[in-house]
Amino acid sequence: MKQNTTFALRGNLLDGTSPTQIHFLDNYYLVCENGQVAGIFPRLPQKYAGLQVENWEGRLIIPGLVDLHTHAPQYPFRGLGMDLELLDWLNARTFPEESRYADPAYAQRAYQLFVEDLKSSATTRACIFATVHPEGTLLLMRLLEATGMVTRVGKVNMDRNCPEGLRELSAEASLAATRKWLEGCVGFSHTRPILTPRFIPSCSDPLLEGLSALQRETGLPVQSHLSENPSEVEWVRQLCPDAIGYGDAYLRRGLLGGLGCPTIMAHCVYSDAAERRLLREQGVWVAHCPQSNTNLTSGIAPARAFLEEGVPMGLGSDLAGGHTLSILRAIADTVQVSKLRWRLQDSAYRPLTFPEAFWLATAGGGSFFGRVGRLQPGYAFDVVVLDDSAYPHPQQLNSLERLERLCYLCSDDRQVVVRKFVEGNPVAGSPPASL
Amino acid sequence: MKQNTTFALRGNLLDGTSPTQIHFLDNYYLVCENGQVAGIFPRLPQKYAGLQVENWEGRLIIPGLVDLHTHAPQYPFRGLGMDLELLDWLNARTFPEESRYADPAYAQRAYQLFVEDLKSSATTRACIFATVHPEGTLLLMRLLEATGMVTRVGKVNMDRNCPEGLRELSAEASLAATRKWLEGCVGFSHTRPILTPRFIPSCSDPLLEGLSALQRETGLPVQSHLSENPSEVEWVRQLCPDAIGYGDAYLRRGLLGGLGCPTIMAHCVYSDAAERRLLREQGVWVAHCPQSNTNLTSGIAPARAFLEEGVPMGLGSDLAGGHTLSILRAIADTVQVSKLRWRLQDSAYRPLTFPEAFWLATAGGGSFFGRVGRLQPGYAFDVVVLDDSAYPHPQQLNSLERLERLCYLCSDDRQVVVRKFVEGNPVAGSPPASL
Repeated sequence: MKQNTTFALRGNLLDGTSPTQIHFLDNYYLVCENGQVAGIFPRLPQKYAGLQVENWEGRLIIPGLVDLHTHAPQYPFRGLGMDLELLDWLNARTFPEESRYADPAYAQRAYQLFVEDLKSSATTRACIFATVHPEGTLLLMRLLEATGMVTRVGKVNMDRNCPEGLRELSAEASLAATRKWLEGCVGFSHTRPILTPRFIPSCSDPLLEGLSALQRETGLPVQSHLSENPSEVEWVRQLCPDAIGYGDAYLRRGLLGGLGCPTIMAHCVYSDAAERRLLREQGVWVAHCPQSNTNLTSGIAPARAFLEEGVPMGLGSDLAGGHTLSILRAIADTVQVSKLRWRLQDSAYRPLTFPEAFWLATAGGGSFFGRVGRLQPGYAFDVVVLDDSAYPHPQQLNSLERLERLCYLCSDDRQVVVRKFVEGNPVAGSPPASL
Repeated sequence: MKQNTTFALRGNLLDGTSPTQIHFLDNYYLVCENGQVAGIFPRLPQKYAGLQVENWEGRLIIPGLVDLHTHAPQYPFRGLGMDLELLDWLNARTFPEESRYADPAYAQRAYQLFVEDLKSSATTRACIFATVHPEGTLLLMRLLEATGMVTRVGKVNMDRNCPEGLRELSAEASLAATRKWLEGCVGFSHTRPILTPRFIPSCSDPLLEGLSALQRETGLPVQSHLSENPSEVEWVRQLCPDAIGYGDAYLRRGLLGGLGCPTIMAHCVYSDAAERRLLREQGVWVAHCPQSNTNLTSGIAPARAFLEEGVPMGLGSDLAGGHTLSILRAIADTVQVSKLRWRLQDSAYRPLTFPEAFWLATAGGGSFFGRVGRLQPGYAFDVVVLDDSAYPHPQQLNSLERLERLCYLCSDDRQVVVRKFVEGNPVAGSPPASL
């Protein structure tokens, strides 16, 4: 669904020009052609004379944010039952709620709330877990397709260690349901499937190996969870005595990335140097989920080490371990928890800066989708316009200060996102009144 | 300014009935008489027949929240420069901004923004640092008085280790300015002064001792900072070789509470068992400021220990170390950081639960002001009505679930507070449309 129209936005452009720097250009023109950024200009060049311009003078214009890890069916219970740790919370909250998505009427009602809020948010692309249910997953995909956002959506696989009713009855049954779901993935132009084994404790070896074969057969990417919580890591150690670690257990089952097998692993809080090296060698994206790792008492991931060692990384909201889908908020959370890691855990650690966290939310996660997450020619025209006028200031702030402040002050994107484009198509908001 | 009118609110009442429990009563009547809660009823008793009722059916009604520690002049730079640690941040951000409040025109403009937002928030009472400037402090007090909230406001004292222009030139000059400010505190009915030595590094011994004498003379309460950050704690150790610790240093200078000397100490992140015992013995309130302690890389205070050991405690937004004045958000932050303390620092620690954090935000901090922070007969009628309809849910949540969720989802109180009363007087919002 590439848009053929050419148009421009005018406003204060902010772009991460490197992992450590954000540049801003006030009241510049950002031109879109064929769904991509065509150029950035202080004044429109002659060749664009008469171009349609949305004039967002003084507003902040940033690359769309990328959510590399979230669970759509958990949206209803975000911010509820937050006094539980991961494995207890899975049993008390997650599994009962996910069971409801066998009912298409419930799935429709609940997914609609998630999709509406995601559409109104600063997120332009996302990688999303659904549930084990093929029909419910397709329903979610159809709702997402209608928004114009670009997403990867996965029917979850799990054939062990979860309640009856939610557990797939065998590896074969799970793989067959996956194929059935994939066959149903037709008519989508920007909503694509992704293979989604929940995590090793939920998936038998035959299931993981079957999904690995399916990945090689179809070329589909994979998303899962890795090294989130000490009790989970210990459980995997017991389940996989063959492996030297959690990451190695995925590797031995053929599900840890590698050439032509793009893969996202969420969390990686307890990835030691060996596991981080494995992730880098296999080109696996880490989805850093600071809010969830706090709420579920998991810990604080070594994001600085991933950055320095060159492991691809983006941010994840991880609903409903995370309580908000706001990646603006995730940027602030990333800085906050990295400070606590330095203070409480590792005095040699260097906390992440705001530009670094912004980079992860844009270009970092965007790289999973290709040339995404920058306001640079050749990148997808995924763009968000932010209005911070609800937060007046007695002095004049520059655009970078305004952006930092907004990431801290906002945890409901709906209050600040006034316009959103994905691949050049308008997804949320309306043109400014002055047009 | 006790209100003489008798009226009632109807809605879903939530009250912390103990530090570990929240009870809720849906669509009950909460009656106000003479600025106090007179009773709670499922139906209005005969003696209240014909009473004026604001019918907030289905909305959440909670005790007003108490902010035990914040800095009004720092509101403009909340969420800015968050990549700095405490002492650097004081020099780079705080002191330059506070210098501006020598100019009454700037103070008026900047304080107005703070006071408007505080008025619209779920906070009904607050203890507030101003700056060293007597006139600016009175100006802030007049703005606060006009809102109807109950506050304690302090002109800051500091005569060392801060920039020229902001530094008071001697202990005598600082004390004289304080007396001048106190003489100006006339015509206030619910805005009262509080003595406010910034912290030991900013105050010479003669100044601290002079303030101690002033406290005994006037009976005024005191607010200051204690054991916030390792570098600050070390600095105080060097400045006060006579003391066995930071708390003891205040004690020896006559400024650590005691009978008839109500005192709030903010942070207390590094208060060891001896210092905590001192705080309990002296009846000092701890203002727990989780967001600030995260942003300024200070650490995580041992809130569980304070609770168990019976040290009075409430929550503080600590602008602009904290980036939002929302105490709803501070409740969620309290739970979050306590989980990280358990995970990263002390495996014997028990994270705080949501009801415990809510208790701190209401009855905990409220106790500093007397019978405040409960929806119980005899308590001040400080009440907030919350509207969570911006967060629809596919199922039916109970009132306690809705309150927990709102604390996690909201960080801008203005989006959810629809009505606020302090001592029975309407402070924000309007009666519901149905009236």
